[in-house]
Amino acid sequence: MATKWAQKTIILPARKRGCHLITSNVTKEIQSDLAQFKCGLAHIFLQHTSASLTINENYDSDVLDDVETFLNDTVPEGRKARWKHVLEGPDDMPAHIKSSMFGCSVTIPITDGRLNLGTWQGIWLCEHRDHGSARKIVITMQGA
Amino acid sequence: MATKWAQKTIILPARKRGCHLITSNVTKEIQSDLAQFKCGLAHIFLQHTSASLTINENYDSDVLDDVETFLNDTVPEGRKARWKHVLEGPDDMPAHIKSSMFGCSVTIPITDGRLNLGTWQGIWLCEHRDHGSARKIVITMQGA
Amino acid sequence: MATKWAQKTIILPARKRGCHLITSNVTKEIQSDLAQFKCGLAHIFLQHTSASLTINENYDSDVLDDVETFLNDTVPEGRKARWKHVLEGPDDMPAHIKSSMFGCSVTIPITDGRLNLGTWQGIWLCEHRDHGSARKIVITMQGA
Repeated sequence: MATKWAQKTIILPARKRGCHLITSNVTKEIQSDLAQFKCGLAHIFLQHTSASLTINENYDSDVLDDVETFLNDTVPEGRKARWKHVLEGPDDMPAHIKSSMFGCSVTIPITDGRLNLGTWQGIWLCEHRDHGSARKIVITMQGA
Repeated sequence: MATKWAQKTIILPARKRGCHLITSNVTKEIQSDLAQFKCGLAHIFLQHTSASLTINENYDSDVLDDVETFLNDTVPEGRKARWKHVLEGPDDMPAHIKSSMFGCSVTIPITDGRLNLGTWQGIWLCEHRDHGSARKIVITMQGA
Repeated sequence: MATKWAQKTIILPARKRGCHLITSNVTKEIQSDLAQFKCGLAHIFLQHTSASLTINENYDSDVLDDVETFLNDTVPEGRKARWKHVLEGPDDMPAHIKSSMFGCSVTIPITDGRLNLGTWQGIWLCEHRDHGSARKIVITMQGA
């Protein structure tokens, strides 16, 4: 069976600083594409360097808050920080660091026409800026 | 040459908290699949949010121990932590954080029928729970 | 349209400890390969465990320096560290940890024959050793 490809760019509206569950925002955009793959992969790529994509818990929103707390406790910001790159505001350099800690893309298996996530897994967008803008995500699907 | 796909789910038995080298556990499950690809990719995806997959040193088990030490020193647990999500035990929220730090999947090139890892690279499963259960991994291989 | 594959190993010369923008070093090696893909993915895989690949800011070199500062502040080294693995020098165990924090590979969408990075995104090689050697990278491209 020939391998098929689908690629689309979606734009997520600006969100407040913190971690956000976006599984349904993503799947609703690609549902009809996914349906054509019995076996494949979905690559979800954020085109920004001050936010990140990760896979984590999809049930208790306290987990979203606690991960944000961890990131803020771990990456110094403001007076306690000693960054050289401060032109774009005190939250910008920490945002870049967090983006590399979590990464800007996730790859998820496709099985029988749907994302084959574990029961408790969801896709997270972590917005690391105080006033982040809309975020562009390139989704590439392939499979047979 | 047409692209071929193979996908299988494997279950790794419960391991104690810490980092574990699982390269041989993975390769023995996919050896015959790998053999059919001259050039391709293997995507290894852990379906859990309190453990992680990473690629690191395959020789000295002290490295496994030291990475576990680092994770525990970096992510507060118990009395020194201030997590909201504590219902599933003091080790659960730190486990979620570590899972996003290291990630739940790795992608490895396939060359001439085998995983094209560097000489010192191995696949690690990092179990972040005190009493983790068996862990499910979806392996998707593709190539020509 | 049939899926095509291309794979090549490139060697980057030794760089000093710190973060380095390598987008142009990578793209110049794969430009003619990329040109054949209207839609696809490029997987860039570092075959080492004491350096890492990540995607981050491509404009202000202060960001490269600040990320290196963060890594050194976060992963203890020398007298303040308590690693068991010290045979290969005080910078080796911290290098392994940083490698798993950032990861050893990135996957980037290909669109219309080029890497579909965001405006401010670039590919970084982070050298975590004091005297790292040349670094091997396996690039696997696929698409239609």
